[in-house]
Amino acid sequence: MRPYEVIHRKRDGHPVPPGAIAELVTRYAEGAVPDYQMAAFCMAVFFRGMSEAELQALTGAMLHSGDVLDLSDLPGPKVDKHSTGGVGDKTSLAVAPLAAACGVKVPMVSGRGLGHTGGTLDKLESIPGFQIHLPVERFREVLASVGACMIGQTDRIAPADRKLYALRDLTATVESIPLIAASILSKKLAEGIDGLVLDVKVGSGAFMKRLPEARLLARTLCGLGRGMGKDVTALITDMDQPLGRAVGNALEVKEVLELLHGGGPADLRELTVALTAEMLLLGSVAATEAEARGRVEQAIADGRGFRKLCEIVEAQGGDPRSLADPGRLPRAAATLDVGSPTAGRVEAIDAEALGLAAMALGAGRSRIEDRVDPGAGLEVWKKVGDPVDVGESLVTLHVGLAPLEPPETVAARVRGAYRIGAGPASAGPLVLERIEEGA
Amino acid sequence: MRPYEVIHRKRDGHPVPPGAIAELVTRYAEGAVPDYQMAAFCMAVFFRGMSEAELQALTGAMLHSGDVLDLSDLPGPKVDKHSTGGVGDKTSLAVAPLAAACGVKVPMVSGRGLGHTGGTLDKLESIPGFQIHLPVERFREVLASVGACMIGQTDRIAPADRKLYALRDLTATVESIPLIAASILSKKLAEGIDGLVLDVKVGSGAFMKRLPEARLLARTLCGLGRGMGKDVTALITDMDQPLGRAVGNALEVKEVLELLHGGGPADLRELTVALTAEMLLLGSVAATEAEARGRVEQAIADGRGFRKLCEIVEAQGGDPRSLADPGRLPRAAATLDVGSPTAGRVEAIDAEALGLAAMALGAGRSRIEDRVDPGAGLEVWKKVGDPVDVGESLVTLHVGLAPLEPPETVAARVRGAYRIGAGPASAGPLVLERIEEGA
Repeated sequence: MRPYEVIHRKRDGHPVPPGAIAELVTRYAEGAVPDYQMAAFCMAVFFRGMSEAELQALTGAMLHSGDVLDLSDLPGPKVDKHSTGGVGDKTSLAVAPLAAACGVKVPMVSGRGLGHTGGTLDKLESIPGFQIHLPVERFREVLASVGACMIGQTDRIAPADRKLYALRDLTATVESIPLIAASILSKKLAEGIDGLVLDVKVGSGAFMKRLPEARLLARTLCGLGRGMGKDVTALITDMDQPLGRAVGNALEVKEVLELLHGGGPADLRELTVALTAEMLLLGSVAATEAEARGRVEQAIADGRGFRKLCEIVEAQGGDPRSLADPGRLPRAAATLDVGSPTAGRVEAIDAEALGLAAMALGAGRSRIEDRVDPGAGLEVWKKVGDPVDVGESLVTLHVGLAPLEPPETVAARVRGAYRIGAGPASAGPLVLERIEEGA
Repeated sequence: MRPYEVIHRKRDGHPVPPGAIAELVTRYAEGAVPDYQMAAFCMAVFFRGMSEAELQALTGAMLHSGDVLDLSDLPGPKVDKHSTGGVGDKTSLAVAPLAAACGVKVPMVSGRGLGHTGGTLDKLESIPGFQIHLPVERFREVLASVGACMIGQTDRIAPADRKLYALRDLTATVESIPLIAASILSKKLAEGIDGLVLDVKVGSGAFMKRLPEARLLARTLCGLGRGMGKDVTALITDMDQPLGRAVGNALEVKEVLELLHGGGPADLRELTVALTAEMLLLGSVAATEAEARGRVEQAIADGRGFRKLCEIVEAQGGDPRSLADPGRLPRAAATLDVGSPTAGRVEAIDAEALGLAAMALGAGRSRIEDRVDPGAGLEVWKKVGDPVDVGESLVTLHVGLAPLEPPETVAARVRGAYRIGAGPASAGPLVLERIEEGA
């Protein structure tokens, strides 16, 4: 079927043969189908959606446009976790070692931060010496010996997705649930996993601002993953305020270390345990949720999680002394406290605004080619439901060497992100829903 | 506003500032906005439509991407007629000289045939010597001295439309009423006209297959034209069977000559008079429809229409002897009668199928770069409502020198296009509606 016909059928809401979808994507990746036809197709998908068969064909073609790892020779279950992105979301850094400490292999391929959201690779790179680019054979070795390996996407993983994502980014076709689902899973399935736990964020700091959309994405991802023969479950979790206290790369690593030493903010710990427990269930190393949670809590309590993170860091060229002594991690050039303009109770926080504030301090990037300052970021002292006095610190700014905006401007942004009122507010539940079924 | 934002706003159904639409089109025509962004925009317009202000901005930018004739120094009203395209639609060749003979100046810029529809330029070029490419100064001279001039679109008329149409043709975004309306009017308004009569075809041989769509297009065109300061009226006319008897270039010229001599098929005459009368009304050379029709009928009866066509042909380099003696017009290499397989009454004709049959004989083109055979085509003897005996000729094929299909295959196509039944069928009205108001 010619690209024109595929676009035309999708435009009019008629089913497209899965083979024709696969051919379109494959030929697009090869350069035989022009960008303008793919752009029109993506916009038609935005309006018309995709059937399950079409979506599987799209995802399969994107997946097989590049290398697909075969880890079937490695014993044990291979399970990964993926988050749709948020502010202060450092769970991957804790989840991977904890799951590995409990007997699940974690072949994790992550991305960089962009805009208001952070990225696991940037956080890992704030650990001196840490290598996110490993040859595939070394990736296998680390996975086999340590049980977890955390690397960046290579050019050989799902190149069709990379090309398509760049096009969608320029044509206002990013916000399409089937296209998002295909993009996520085509990269994750290339890791050679058996199962995947998704953390679908919803709220002011997330890509999905409203629960119905987040639910539809979660269901679409679960249905697609299962349709492609993988075990997939999703937690829909709150991103109406930053997760934990730290926002910014080295700051977040420090917070993960606190967590793995049995401390850290309660919300971060709650979500880390919940996600890791789901991985243990998918990997069949625990039979019930209670058992799974118990095993994760134990791996925190007895220090196995922390030691596993040290092993990963060492295996990937990082300096384990910076984990034993977090004072060795990069630090910001300066700090500045943002005091509360009023007294009251924190009723709401615009998490996206805080993410953009961290970016403005040097912790993130507005374009993919920008560099981040590993020490920059925020410490968020006051969260939803907390009482606050006039002048009390809401947030401490950690100002990078070359911030995008003056610290005073960022401080004003931060103050503007807080709604402080009289009412007895409290944060809602963190894990909103658990999804297994397709849409 | 960046192209991304324009696409995003249109995608989500939010109003786009007219200036941003104009800038998008202007920069697209210059090559500064890439095809893929324009393709995504067009698909978003397909789903979301355009407001009146957006559509005027789009049309204005396409119009002013090229030369716009200023005919204000020529005395008298300047009115053109445009058809959305059909099978056997040769009215332009009669309407232009008749309107000019009645005192309306007709600066007509036409196109070529494509697929099942014919084009005025191909019909004119079947007259030996006729030049469809004239310098703009000569176009003015002929218009001033003869009162009508019929030429082809130049590269300098609405180049943004040409570029955009080629893109839409590859991205399944042709079938969008606002984009169709902008394309038609951006070219027509470049002619320097005061008024325009639109013949919006509906039925099996037309672009619009159903009346509600045709009505919406007609209203959109009228609203857009009036919004841009021109008098525009539209007739919605039946294209469920070919217009007149002749389909094919020289055959259609011969039929126009019959008409201008007071003969020819009744439906062709009815539509020609109706359209020309509308032009006279728009040009204010008649006050009522009855008066306008009377003047057109008179111009046929006293031969002024025929003499005016001869003047146009002579002014544009054509051989007027081929009008006086139509035997001098090109003829097909061979003819073949298609007899009726059954007796009964013609209940329906698939006009598009007959158009494609004529194309297969050499009268049309499947790609814009193909050449046509001026003598090829069809004579359609039996129309809807006509009784027919077994073996009686339905259609005579005029076979070009290099037909795309063997005549026997075309004959089978023609037989397949006829539905012959028992019932007392009759063709419906030819002019279905008259539209003045916007959508």
